[in-house]
Amino acid sequence: MSHTSEATTTHWVLTLTCPDQPGIVAAVAGLLAEHGGNITESQQFGDPQSGLFVMRVQVTSSASAAELGAALDALSPRFDLQWSLDVVGRPVRTLVMVSTAAHCLNDLAFRQRSENLPVDLVAVVSNHEVLAPLAQFYDIPFHHVPVSAATKADAEARLLALVEELDVELVVLARYMQILSDDLCRALEGRVINIHHSFLPSFKGARPYAQAYERGVKLIGATAHYVTGDLDEGPIIEQDVERVDHAQSVEDLVALGQDVERRALARAVRWHAEHRVLLDGHRTIVFR
Amino acid sequence: MSHTSEATTTHWVLTLTCPDQPGIVAAVAGLLAEHGGNITESQQFGDPQSGLFVMRVQVTSSASAAELGAALDALSPRFDLQWSLDVVGRPVRTLVMVSTAAHCLNDLAFRQRSENLPVDLVAVVSNHEVLAPLAQFYDIPFHHVPVSAATKADAEARLLALVEELDVELVVLARYMQILSDDLCRALEGRVINIHHSFLPSFKGARPYAQAYERGVKLIGATAHYVTGDLDEGPIIEQDVERVDHAQSVEDLVALGQDVERRALARAVRWHAEHRVLLDGHRTIVFR
Amino acid sequence: MSHTSEATTTHWVLTLTCPDQPGIVAAVAGLLAEHGGNITESQQFGDPQSGLFVMRVQVTSSASAAELGAALDALSPRFDLQWSLDVVGRPVRTLVMVSTAAHCLNDLAFRQRSENLPVDLVAVVSNHEVLAPLAQFYDIPFHHVPVSAATKADAEARLLALVEELDVELVVLARYMQILSDDLCRALEGRVINIHHSFLPSFKGARPYAQAYERGVKLIGATAHYVTGDLDEGPIIEQDVERVDHAQSVEDLVALGQDVERRALARAVRWHAEHRVLLDGHRTIVFR
Amino acid sequence: MSHTSEATTTHWVLTLTCPDQPGIVAAVAGLLAEHGGNITESQQFGDPQSGLFVMRVQVTSSASAAELGAALDALSPRFDLQWSLDVVGRPVRTLVMVSTAAHCLNDLAFRQRSENLPVDLVAVVSNHEVLAPLAQFYDIPFHHVPVSAATKADAEARLLALVEELDVELVVLARYMQILSDDLCRALEGRVINIHHSFLPSFKGARPYAQAYERGVKLIGATAHYVTGDLDEGPIIEQDVERVDHAQSVEDLVALGQDVERRALARAVRWHAEHRVLLDGHRTIVFR
Repeated sequence: MSHTSEATTTHWVLTLTCPDQPGIVAAVAGLLAEHGGNITESQQFGDPQSGLFVMRVQVTSSASAAELGAALDALSPRFDLQWSLDVVGRPVRTLVMVSTAAHCLNDLAFRQRSENLPVDLVAVVSNHEVLAPLAQFYDIPFHHVPVSAATKADAEARLLALVEELDVELVVLARYMQILSDDLCRALEGRVINIHHSFLPSFKGARPYAQAYERGVKLIGATAHYVTGDLDEGPIIEQDVERVDHAQSVEDLVALGQDVERRALARAVRWHAEHRVLLDGHRTIVFR
Repeated sequence: MSHTSEATTTHWVLTLTCPDQPGIVAAVAGLLAEHGGNITESQQFGDPQSGLFVMRVQVTSSASAAELGAALDALSPRFDLQWSLDVVGRPVRTLVMVSTAAHCLNDLAFRQRSENLPVDLVAVVSNHEVLAPLAQFYDIPFHHVPVSAATKADAEARLLALVEELDVELVVLARYMQILSDDLCRALEGRVINIHHSFLPSFKGARPYAQAYERGVKLIGATAHYVTGDLDEGPIIEQDVERVDHAQSVEDLVALGQDVERRALARAVRWHAEHRVLLDGHRTIVFR
Repeated sequence: MSHTSEATTTHWVLTLTCPDQPGIVAAVAGLLAEHGGNITESQQFGDPQSGLFVMRVQVTSSASAAELGAALDALSPRFDLQWSLDVVGRPVRTLVMVSTAAHCLNDLAFRQRSENLPVDLVAVVSNHEVLAPLAQFYDIPFHHVPVSAATKADAEARLLALVEELDVELVVLARYMQILSDDLCRALEGRVINIHHSFLPSFKGARPYAQAYERGVKLIGATAHYVTGDLDEGPIIEQDVERVDHAQSVEDLVALGQDVERRALARAVRWHAEHRVLLDGHRTIVFR
Repeated sequence: MSHTSEATTTHWVLTLTCPDQPGIVAAVAGLLAEHGGNITESQQFGDPQSGLFVMRVQVTSSASAAELGAALDALSPRFDLQWSLDVVGRPVRTLVMVSTAAHCLNDLAFRQRSENLPVDLVAVVSNHEVLAPLAQFYDIPFHHVPVSAATKADAEARLLALVEELDVELVVLARYMQILSDDLCRALEGRVINIHHSFLPSFKGARPYAQAYERGVKLIGATAHYVTGDLDEGPIIEQDVERVDHAQSVEDLVALGQDVERRALARAVRWHAEHRVLLDGHRTIVFR
């Protein structure tokens, strides 16, 4: 769509949720039209079970964020709207937590640099030092925050302080091998994406690939999800699988698993950063 | 979504296209709201290249088709709308053309019976008789229309007569091995779906699987598309592939290809019958 | 491979397992060469964990089954061989058990007829009557064996009797919704393939698709496996998945799940019937 | 497989091709058994069309390369064998050619470092300088070899000189945007892998993604293949696809295409380096 306008036209992305009722789309579309908005992409979904209505709109308009926000605030009471407005493509300030496995960090950093993954990687935090050179290559400040039973509380406090200082909007657990405390999970709820090294629901416990090998599975998978109090049980954003066979050792499964992990994680981070993921109770609506 | 209503509430599916301009969604959503419509699913897309705007809405309303149609007609001039209204799930009257290969017909008939594929299979037309028992098993009237160079014009006339008589809305070429004349293609344009036994663009000519074998490809595919004057070049609706390897003979490729063909065709027919496929010049918009 | 021979040349498939040790392949290949055998396809695998060696060979030879068998018997003590010899493509006598869902039976019967799936469907056994016409269409004798708590033992006895009478080599549980007794499982061990309507390990319990919906998974899957005493825990032969999203209802998941189920089951049955699946403890070796 | 042996046991990979005839496997397996060989993995294939027999064996043995080689040389005349022997996992000396796109180089270098991709990246050669820092990060010597019409012959001479000096076994064209001369292709035949930014056979010409967009395809793909005189027509090693839809711009297709490209290329390089790819005329046999 190209209709001429002053240089100040902005490409906005608006997401909103509310209890489903007639007239929502008309009201929102009317509001946008009154502000000279031209809708370029839009998706709606009404969950017949939960009764939640969810909408994502990309719209060009010369109205300011303040103007649009005021209009949305005025509309909210009528529909009990929760809304969020951002500029399409604005990089989301992201902190990546890692331990020693490089594949997810390497993939995210590469995609940020080369594929316009709309994130700004403002920090890498690790309980090890081995990935410092990788962070440095991508010009991402690296913070070594060792964790032991004794220092765990301090380490989490330091992480929270970094989140504050750096205005972090999204924390990505990119194969970070420490369990976050319930308090931390709650403090950051909705802002933390984890990549689970298995296809959920799946083998429980510490060595999923070894269990998958023992069981002789023919597919291995990975799950990207939001973190809630229950670490591996948060709302699923994306899952993917890779075919394996009997000839592959546990080590082979781990290597193949890394491919699936980074792929599923990169998609989840992209969709989150593009405001395509909305929560509907324990499920996600993903407007791909 | 459940809001109470008289028993006469209908679940409508509305599709429309028009040149993109501000205010379309607001106007349409407003129109639906005025008729007590509650939007349950909606997707819009504005093609930045062609300038076409495309919308598909599922909406419950107690308004009649006549009421909604009158309102849409009144709105049309302002936006130059092309619209279409149907009842969600209404079976599309479909005629299937086959030669001797059963896999696509068998799949469509089975899905119609068991999976609520929203089509009504009103006729099978074939230039051979071998698939008559299959049609009979599924209670579909079978018409044997032999084709030779001499009788081709008559055969096509008979097909067109059947399309008329039976109020056929969709013709599916389910591995029908005759080339339709340009006249017939034009007469039925937009209402004929073909399954091309190859991944387009691809090997040209009569024996694509043999060519694929010679070339040593590692994937084979199939393409479901609308038929235009140029038989294999119409707008693509769906494509799929299957992995193959060196050990597979041409016959194996054909068998695997049949799996891909019926899968791609079934999806294309379903999406068409659910009014999810809209034309944007030579491309399709598929609101899956 | 084409070397001339008398009309009596047969295409054999030989499978064997034994504890791994040097010289096995040489001994077996030597034995086959001594009988004029020409190997057309061969795969071996030595499991580094279990120490089991597994081999599958397709070989053309004018030797008889008796001659080859005698030679293999003579070789067996040296390597502690377990071997099996069959003719490539010989249809495996197969009994299919169903309840009311048609998709797996329909798929197997269609592939048997049209794709040279090397099985001979000698009986359909069902605790319902609804699939009798489908069996009849494919000319498969249909046996209605109702099952209640009171008649379960009798029903299983009748099944075992049919297996005997009909020389059944393979029993396929094609969405048969009854749990087999441990005794029956043991009596038929290694000869029963089940399709599990879920991606194992997975949601436990009766309504996996409802659970998958609640959990908001992005992929659903199915697992074809041998039946052991523990019904859903036998060695996995094949798994497959299909992508789903938030807009799909539980009913949609069931319909998509049927596609995955029949695909995974058809592959498992084909590989079993082609003697491509060998047991290695609780895992399968599949020489695809 | 673990049978005790002196520390000098080596894990060998032997590949061989010859005209198909009875007795080959027996002779080779016998030869290996005579040298105390224990076969851990083995695959054979006889192409029924070309009459070529192809075999790949992994075998542990305390025999030296010289001993095994002498025995194979002695056996060769009887079967007209072409054989090759290497140590399992030995890194193949590899030179990567790039222009400005980083995704393939980044992926190969990362997999070499983290996933035991068995290559030794001895040089990056580029007609641009933009990827020098990436090469440096991975400690790979970077050679800037500009190419113009006037300097093309010199540039190719310099490449050949590097191949000589560095004992290069494999050249990977990792989105190198220059066309190699026929002479160079011939000089390096069988040792050059290219990633074609399209699913072959496919859109011809310079802008495949733009053509794919115009055509409205639903899948995009990539093809990894050996380079022969005809640049994009050499034997195919691997192909892969990714699903796309109408909402994706040409730029989106390019980004998604990069994912497919690097995945297909990495697999092709791994299989080549593990001696799993054998030529059968214009087709490849890939023993995955």
